[in-house]
Amino acid sequence: MSVITIVGAGMMGSAMCFPAADNGHEVRLVGIHNRESIDSVRATGYHTTLKRQLPKGVKAYHIEGLREALEGADLVISGVSSFGAKWFEETVLPLLPENTPVLSVTKGLEATEDGTLIPFPTAMAARAGKKVSLNAVGGPVISFELADRQQTEIAFCGTDMEVLKKLKAMLATDYYHITLTTDVAGLECAVAMKNAYALGVALAIGLNEKKYGEGTSEHYNPQAALFEESVREAMKLMTIMNGNMETLPFFAGDLYVTVFGGRTRRIGVLLGKGYTYPEAREILAGVTLESVAIATLASEAIRKMEARGVAKVSDFPLLMHIDGIINRKEEVNVPWLTFEQESTY
Amino acid sequence: MSVITIVGAGMMGSAMCFPAADNGHEVRLVGIHNRESIDSVRATGYHTTLKRQLPKGVKAYHIEGLREALEGADLVISGVSSFGAKWFEETVLPLLPENTPVLSVTKGLEATEDGTLIPFPTAMAARAGKKVSLNAVGGPVISFELADRQQTEIAFCGTDMEVLKKLKAMLATDYYHITLTTDVAGLECAVAMKNAYALGVALAIGLNEKKYGEGTSEHYNPQAALFEESVREAMKLMTIMNGNMETLPFFAGDLYVTVFGGRTRRIGVLLGKGYTYPEAREILAGVTLESVAIATLASEAIRKMEARGVAKVSDFPLLMHIDGIINRKEEVNVPWLTFEQESTY
Repeated sequence: MSVITIVGAGMMGSAMCFPAADNGHEVRLVGIHNRESIDSVRATGYHTTLKRQLPKGVKAYHIEGLREALEGADLVISGVSSFGAKWFEETVLPLLPENTPVLSVTKGLEATEDGTLIPFPTAMAARAGKKVSLNAVGGPVISFELADRQQTEIAFCGTDMEVLKKLKAMLATDYYHITLTTDVAGLECAVAMKNAYALGVALAIGLNEKKYGEGTSEHYNPQAALFEESVREAMKLMTIMNGNMETLPFFAGDLYVTVFGGRTRRIGVLLGKGYTYPEAREILAGVTLESVAIATLASEAIRKMEARGVAKVSDFPLLMHIDGIINRKEEVNVPWLTFEQESTY
Repeated sequence: MSVITIVGAGMMGSAMCFPAADNGHEVRLVGIHNRESIDSVRATGYHTTLKRQLPKGVKAYHIEGLREALEGADLVISGVSSFGAKWFEETVLPLLPENTPVLSVTKGLEATEDGTLIPFPTAMAARAGKKVSLNAVGGPVISFELADRQQTEIAFCGTDMEVLKKLKAMLATDYYHITLTTDVAGLECAVAMKNAYALGVALAIGLNEKKYGEGTSEHYNPQAALFEESVREAMKLMTIMNGNMETLPFFAGDLYVTVFGGRTRRIGVLLGKGYTYPEAREILAGVTLESVAIATLASEAIRKMEARGVAKVSDFPLLMHIDGIINRKEEVNVPWLTFEQESTY
């Protein structure tokens, strides 16, 4: 039995209690902002936003108990969103003994001044100033479904396969299936970008509602065309980041699941229906939109990479259109023609 | 203006009338079995199974008028299903002048005695005994939606880019977007296999209905895991067939759209719910199931390729399970564990 401390008691962090507890570990869950959820878990075991009874024995902490919760942890799971990554790096990482394995559910990329895209774990490790073991989870997971022990397949990535094997041994269950890969760049690019592209696919759903009315049957050819283009552009960006195509299935599976529901679909549908970005943002007030952040960051980075001759903006027409809608008041006008390719072998 | 003759007046063949007619061509539609549809088109222009008014000017022929309809055709579109491919080859191809371009909506692979998989156009060209120009369409299209002029993106493949460019010039519209590729093996493998794998993804929908009841909310983690594995296995088979990954987006987009509806989803859901294959087959009596045919053919070919050392059966656990359910009375028991990978770079 090990001690697993999960920092961040949002949906995904809290859902990780299930595979952790089902492996018989001592599980400590630390809420950063979620005081109500933590109070409820302490009182009855019920998590108020995940809307599930957490496994018996999960110990819940408010943020004031962070140090205590990290004491003796064999594994620290970062359950923060991409917007909390900086906080985790500055607040939690310094408290950890060297080489304490961290497994992060956070999806994200950073961009340097010249537009080089770097996955979070790689960027954080470079800044850490001590030996750290930063690993990440990527792939399609709806947190409610993980909590319900639905069959789920994700990947753990990190630089050390031996560490990854240990993490898998700690967390694998008969419903939580873990692929291991040292292709950090490929996997993180894939799962970060799927948020941007799920917004893109959802534009077609919104365009359809605008034209035919809500509740009418969806049309799938346009969605499929955007899905196609999303896969095409993701492959190009993964290649630029020296990712391996073996992690591409996680992009496709994660895109598939993200289009079906949640905040990313909602913003895409709203934009497709003709709301401006500020209007859509207001309708979804209070909702964190990682899709918007990553689309903005990646498209800016690609423009900078084009200036250095390492990427072509014209390879990413869908991403650039998403960026235009969000950041340059472009009206939704999907550039279908630019998706057409011509390849001779 | 050219003459375009479409042989096969099923859903997809008939839907091709729309981009053809919208380009101002003379369009001739030949029914093979569909006497009722053809009579109706002749009388009023209404196609009874596509449930749409065909564009004005489409000339409809019964099969007895085949020779007349082919007279002077600049392009022949084969609208037959994979089960009609042999018929097309034996009946229609011999009637065509050398090098008359053929564009086939048929998706399919053939297997040689030693398990080599060959795309239909390649196999037919090798047997033709004269110069033929066999090209094919692949990618996500719901025929109703094409007839409604929804945005659609597909690929044309063939061995001669100049011919492909001519076909594109004849058929492209502002809703029918055409990528061109000489990667016949990659595209045909992708779009043929998506039928088998869509059945695989739909198993999760059936398993969910069996456990929680019909009409309850779907769970997406299991579907996404199967989607992931489908992409992984398709990439492996495309690689074995010397296909290029640039055609992979058409697999992913086509899989996306095929899971949402139609016969392939229905058979997968029924099997997932626990019906045996003979039971499911009876429920869907009269429905052609290309998914079943291609899963059977490809899995048999992969076993033969393993014997020759050019493929590993263990790389295709989902396809082998689908084959087992259909052909060896296996109960549905998705081999989730076998989807887990380990890759060091």
